[in-house]
Amino acid sequence: MLATNRSEVERMMDEVMITLTEKPELNDPVLIEGLPGVGNVGKLAAEHLLDELETTKFGDIYSRHFPPQVLVEEDGVIKLVNNELYYYKRGEGDEPGPDIVFLVGDYQGISSEGQYILTERVLDMAQDLGVKMVFTLGGYGLGRMVENPRVLGAATSHAVVSDMKKVGVVFQKGEPVSGIVGASGLLLGLGRIRNVEGICLMGETSGYFVDPKSAQAVLEVLTNILKISVSFSELEDKALQIDKITSQLKELEGTGGSEGGSEDLRYIG
Amino acid sequence: MLATNRSEVERMMDEVMITLTEKPELNDPVLIEGLPGVGNVGKLAAEHLLDELETTKFGDIYSRHFPPQVLVEEDGVIKLVNNELYYYKRGEGDEPGPDIVFLVGDYQGISSEGQYILTERVLDMAQDLGVKMVFTLGGYGLGRMVENPRVLGAATSHAVVSDMKKVGVVFQKGEPVSGIVGASGLLLGLGRIRNVEGICLMGETSGYFVDPKSAQAVLEVLTNILKISVSFSELEDKALQIDKITSQLKELEGTGGSEGGSEDLRYIG
Amino acid sequence: MLATNRSEVERMMDEVMITLTEKPELNDPVLIEGLPGVGNVGKLAAEHLLDELETTKFGDIYSRHFPPQVLVEEDGVIKLVNNELYYYKRGEGDEPGPDIVFLVGDYQGISSEGQYILTERVLDMAQDLGVKMVFTLGGYGLGRMVENPRVLGAATSHAVVSDMKKVGVVFQKGEPVSGIVGASGLLLGLGRIRNVEGICLMGETSGYFVDPKSAQAVLEVLTNILKISVSFSELEDKALQIDKITSQLKELEGTGGSEGGSEDLRYIG
Amino acid sequence: MLATNRSEVERMMDEVMITLTEKPELNDPVLIEGLPGVGNVGKLAAEHLLDELETTKFGDIYSRHFPPQVLVEEDGVIKLVNNELYYYKRGEGDEPGPDIVFLVGDYQGISSEGQYILTERVLDMAQDLGVKMVFTLGGYGLGRMVENPRVLGAATSHAVVSDMKKVGVVFQKGEPVSGIVGASGLLLGLGRIRNVEGICLMGETSGYFVDPKSAQAVLEVLTNILKISVSFSELEDKALQIDKITSQLKELEGTGGSEGGSEDLRYIG
Repeated sequence: MLATNRSEVERMMDEVMITLTEKPELNDPVLIEGLPGVGNVGKLAAEHLLDELETTKFGDIYSRHFPPQVLVEEDGVIKLVNNELYYYKRGEGDEPGPDIVFLVGDYQGISSEGQYILTERVLDMAQDLGVKMVFTLGGYGLGRMVENPRVLGAATSHAVVSDMKKVGVVFQKGEPVSGIVGASGLLLGLGRIRNVEGICLMGETSGYFVDPKSAQAVLEVLTNILKISVSFSELEDKALQIDKITSQLKELEGTGGSEGGSEDLRYIG
Repeated sequence: MLATNRSEVERMMDEVMITLTEKPELNDPVLIEGLPGVGNVGKLAAEHLLDELETTKFGDIYSRHFPPQVLVEEDGVIKLVNNELYYYKRGEGDEPGPDIVFLVGDYQGISSEGQYILTERVLDMAQDLGVKMVFTLGGYGLGRMVENPRVLGAATSHAVVSDMKKVGVVFQKGEPVSGIVGASGLLLGLGRIRNVEGICLMGETSGYFVDPKSAQAVLEVLTNILKISVSFSELEDKALQIDKITSQLKELEGTGGSEGGSEDLRYIG
Repeated sequence: MLATNRSEVERMMDEVMITLTEKPELNDPVLIEGLPGVGNVGKLAAEHLLDELETTKFGDIYSRHFPPQVLVEEDGVIKLVNNELYYYKRGEGDEPGPDIVFLVGDYQGISSEGQYILTERVLDMAQDLGVKMVFTLGGYGLGRMVENPRVLGAATSHAVVSDMKKVGVVFQKGEPVSGIVGASGLLLGLGRIRNVEGICLMGETSGYFVDPKSAQAVLEVLTNILKISVSFSELEDKALQIDKITSQLKELEGTGGSEGGSEDLRYIG
Repeated sequence: MLATNRSEVERMMDEVMITLTEKPELNDPVLIEGLPGVGNVGKLAAEHLLDELETTKFGDIYSRHFPPQVLVEEDGVIKLVNNELYYYKRGEGDEPGPDIVFLVGDYQGISSEGQYILTERVLDMAQDLGVKMVFTLGGYGLGRMVENPRVLGAATSHAVVSDMKKVGVVFQKGEPVSGIVGASGLLLGLGRIRNVEGICLMGETSGYFVDPKSAQAVLEVLTNILKISVSFSELEDKALQIDKITSQLKELEGTGGSEGGSEDLRYIG
């Protein structure tokens, strides 16, 4: 009787696999995380930056802590569920400022332990590239419609809180009450232990649907901090589409005689 | 106080145990996976091939990621829940073509992590035998009766997509929308990372019951690709039995005055 | 900043901890497993043997795969949830036959993986003591009252099946249909892979309540095989008590006008 | 293709991370655990001692077995979910007696395995500091209002039971019937295996709400044992507040015509 000769210990190294096509040389890089969450605000914001800046994909993160699933792309080619890494490097003509590493994707770890393990490995990778500051992007669900979303913050140190207040980030005593769950929280929490600074920028959002307006509010603060400028027209278009849909829903309610108004939109999501 | 002397690290090597009774010498082998899934199309198809070809069992896969259970066979002898490995080696008179390794069984891993771990070990074993191409077989659930099932595909590269289109495999933009879950997906997804090519062949099926007709459609494509020929009479017999049952069910509905027609068959389960 | 200096790898050795107060010298020992299950038949049977024979406790099994719980004994002293090991060694005056190792306790592993891991470690320990044959004891739930329970079997080899038929064990084609789940199954399934023979002896039982009569049926077969003799009066007393309760329940039903008869006892739970 | 160079085995050392800012020299130290549980009695009691004694924080426990979450403190600074370690060292003027290590926090491990692993690591740390006796504090839920809560105990040995009876701890035959679950139980159960003595002190409580009166009862026993004296005025204030709320609730019931009396308070939650 023969057994295959690969030891279990060896295999365990694949619990998270980060494959890099290159190891970029970056100046004073920061990490921006935009994974799925409340109102998909963080994901929308990070992916908008990716689209608008000249970024380069340099890595994939695969893990058994993601769903056991492949996606099928338009051309019939499959892709294992993953998170992706991009970088943005400033050119000679750009305003001086930090380079950027992006962490984006359609999934977070599906177990609590998996979320810890993935975050630890992302921080390993980020620190290896010289990252000392992390921006995690997300939504702050209010459960009601928001006309002019503010950007709330929670950070790893008083120094960061103080810096961020100056650029308009709002800090509200002990909010969010329930803390910050998932990658946006863990990157800060585990980062702090490693002396990696960070802030979670949370755009106010109803939480009922995907919210491009909230994503734009987050980006207006973030681009200001990072000294980059991008067009927001794509996000504005998306916001108009969402507004149109919500208006139609309100009208439908009106017709039906309901007096619920915008409050009832909470039931859409 | 004494403690038993086997270390935990040693024990961990048993997380997946692949026991081979021989290590076959195979020419240009491909792997065919047919584990349980939608309409049991993949399992039916793979096991039909096993029955019709002169195959040799050469291995068992045991794992703590399968259910903690033994099955009792007809003779009263138990068998630990497992997956099984067979090979098919072409003889001198056969048409030239690849040899085949089969992965079959009654179970997939019961946790997401278990599915990743099992697939990684199967790929280790397959690559060790020289496998460079994987065929995963499954059903494509339509939620309605199908008269002439087509065979849809999703593959690891454009080259494979292109080859498979030539033999009649249908590629539909970004379908299946929800991706491919379980062994059929992971063998391709994890295989792609290791430069193992692969395709998932999915026979259209209602998804309401075991579907031999869909399995036959998959096999007609697959045997053509692999240059093997087998009789389909057994599958055709099974298909007739299923047809008979579904006809009776339709009649029963008619008697009962229901106008539901074939659509109601979804409730058969 | 200091960190405690015990490595995780070291700690992992405690995933299952088997502590032995002695390593007994046993002649041709067999392992008897009697953990909780259908009708608690196996547990009742094994513990009755423990009480009737002159046995010695020689070990405890602790594991993080048991519940995170201590029990409080009559004297106020706590006991970590565990499984226990006893042995029975024949004296000079006893009939010749195998010595016995007992595995008993109030819990099985709480996860599928935990059940595999615990069973592997028990087999390690048993083989270390020279065990080559395992008897797992359990109930075979019929869902109806049983007057004269038979003892069904499922074994690791044709040789064992054949031997056991001679002493009255009943083998029914492919039963139990759903296989054998938990320690009673895994000890045989994982044992077979290690060339440890074994049989699961299942006493027929309604499955509605603890069943001493079924336990006695199992023990009558088992003591015959192992050439030991014990009194069954304690089990008979327990059986009488159960009979009394079930009779009262039947009468209550009669009074209530129900015509359900004994069939309704399935709802006792 | 590059891979990050930190091995999985290395990473596993972070499954539980205990970071100490100093390793205190303690005389004959005991460990006091007060984590969340029934009526939060243990947590209230331990934290009251922390507040009243001159204690020093010397460590944090982080683990992937806690929720994947950060909390946001009043100043906008995040804190990874954790348990915390404090010590109390007697000064020259104090009554002679043991020094104390405190284990407090807002969370216990979220899986059974996690609870075992965390407890093992806490015991490693505690033994490293010289701890030979553990006091775990908790509530004993009665499901009815308690005027004068008694303090029940369960201990690791007859010697401890006997000592504790002398100072008024009540031992009731085999109670609590369902044992002790979580850190309060495991510290004793796993401690006993390591020859660390311990007792769980359980204050009687309704279990309907946070119970400072029960916490005070526990502390009156504990401070007597440890030869420390603290003011209870803060706990008494909290108890008055709770009494006020429950009285108001009773009145409300009266108004509503309900005759339920205090029994109905179980629905407060």
